[in-house]
Amino acid sequence: MPTTIGSLSEFELIARITSRLAPTHDVLIGPGDDAALLRAPDSRVVATTDLLVEGRHFRRDWSRPRDVGHKAAAQNLADVAAMGARPTGLLFGFAAPPELPVSWAEELAEGLAAECAAAGAAVVGGDVVRASELTLAITALGDLAGAAPVRRGGARPGDLVAVAGRLGWSAAGLALLADPPADPADPAAAAVVAEHRRPSPPYPAGPEAARLRATAMIDVSDGLVQDLGHIAAAGGVRVELDSAALRPDPELAAACALLDGADPLAFMLNGGEDHALAASFRPGTPLPRHWRTVGRIGIGSGVLLDGSPVNPSGWDHFGRGAPG
Amino acid sequence: MPTTIGSLSEFELIARITSRLAPTHDVLIGPGDDAALLRAPDSRVVATTDLLVEGRHFRRDWSRPRDVGHKAAAQNLADVAAMGARPTGLLFGFAAPPELPVSWAEELAEGLAAECAAAGAAVVGGDVVRASELTLAITALGDLAGAAPVRRGGARPGDLVAVAGRLGWSAAGLALLADPPADPADPAAAAVVAEHRRPSPPYPAGPEAARLRATAMIDVSDGLVQDLGHIAAAGGVRVELDSAALRPDPELAAACALLDGADPLAFMLNGGEDHALAASFRPGTPLPRHWRTVGRIGIGSGVLLDGSPVNPSGWDHFGRGAPG
Repeated sequence: MPTTIGSLSEFELIARITSRLAPTHDVLIGPGDDAALLRAPDSRVVATTDLLVEGRHFRRDWSRPRDVGHKAAAQNLADVAAMGARPTGLLFGFAAPPELPVSWAEELAEGLAAECAAAGAAVVGGDVVRASELTLAITALGDLAGAAPVRRGGARPGDLVAVAGRLGWSAAGLALLADPPADPADPAAAAVVAEHRRPSPPYPAGPEAARLRATAMIDVSDGLVQDLGHIAAAGGVRVELDSAALRPDPELAAACALLDGADPLAFMLNGGEDHALAASFRPGTPLPRHWRTVGRIGIGSGVLLDGSPVNPSGWDHFGRGAPG
Repeated sequence: MPTTIGSLSEFELIARITSRLAPTHDVLIGPGDDAALLRAPDSRVVATTDLLVEGRHFRRDWSRPRDVGHKAAAQNLADVAAMGARPTGLLFGFAAPPELPVSWAEELAEGLAAECAAAGAAVVGGDVVRASELTLAITALGDLAGAAPVRRGGARPGDLVAVAGRLGWSAAGLALLADPPADPADPAAAAVVAEHRRPSPPYPAGPEAARLRATAMIDVSDGLVQDLGHIAAAGGVRVELDSAALRPDPELAAACALLDGADPLAFMLNGGEDHALAASFRPGTPLPRHWRTVGRIGIGSGVLLDGSPVNPSGWDHFGRGAPG
């Protein structure tokens, strides 16, 4: 029988977790005091928080704890990047049932720490409590390095719309977990399932977009159409997508072939949780190659694909129409 | 039948909550974007996070939602003050079952906002998710205004030990909720029960202690003996308490009379959740009246009361020996 977290005291469990964390030069005081102290070089701090609940945002039978840690950190660090900021720190609240194996908590912490390291950030504090439901509460902090924050509402008619990062992979991976292919070792399936378990947000593209004076930016967490709909609504403009520019990555196309020929474009438009960055830029902005232009901003409202309105069928985390 | 949060979309619920919030001059970007942006005037940011789970940290039949909001904010804002910082911002993660009345969520948000206002801070962001268990995840941020952070480990032999804020009230209030007095309108009972529902941390005493160059400080959340034990352990010293200096407030003494003559000193030594501040200061430091000297720092380890070692019987939020 594995050792459970309920057999440890609060302080023993905290020690098991914090021993897996490493500071960066931004960390002035890390875990162990009443609060952490983090550098905020430009005298402002970007801050965002998310909750992940077992069975709703992750499944222990579908993802290993290290993957859950990566994903929980990634979705918050991507929100920091989507403001144009560099992630600096992460706080981690952990509500868990006492029968959870200690190794699960330890590997979760290793995943959080590794994802933070990939983004240049560090886990700086947290809290552990007993609960019936396994829940992670993540807060991420970041620094704008003097840049103006890139908000949702600044897109103007004529702007380019561009995306950095992957689209549709996570949703295709989720579909394959729910309906596994005949050959579970198929490399296309493995690639998108891995991306569902551990999204790979393009963190440096966030501050880069701020330097390129992006007019608006958002993290694609609920689906491209839904998230661009927020940019359209906030800016009082419409987003005009061009399907020819939304060519699926080869791995996504191959995964769709395993899903009875599902349409990759549907995953790219509506799939959530990839944590790509979508942004608008003034026309003529010299975009690095990893930003793919997928459309433009027009006068009007909503999101159009090849001239026709498209409705979001992305995720609503809480109420009507939400899964789970 | 009241309107439930499950009948609202995620965005409708967020709008109900954010309409109850007010910004301060520290808030550069509040709720509604990928992340908030908050001033961090001295180029560092204090950050702390806590989870509160229904049935464990609050009960809906014992506390109104506004009280729960006050308490959830207070315990995090007090951690910021315990570093010597001024609270600036708060993020709020809300996991709730769909059958929760909307009014409960709205009044919770009002309590969070009111407690933030009392501390000079603002709610700047959050997240809402569906869950079986009602859980609040709070992160508080703060600014040191150029002062050195007051850590747990700096107490030195000869230092004074002093407390600002109330001791024992919250635990006595909890005892009276569990074992109500014959006269529920008894003013002593009402006073300590109110303090259990809404603790009143002495926020300004935190930055004040930093200015007075406190050598160590902690927020009394788990009981005075247990929390001073952290100061003793972190500093490699012992804390020598003087029972004559731990005179109970009249309200606490009166409440204890209703509890079959319970010992007020036991509540003051071991009761949690008052969120007083306990600190050590160099001898001769001119302490304002709201800091009561309760002992001194000596050579050794642990916590002594009138020369005899005392063991903490405070709260352990997770494992062995924890209630609930």
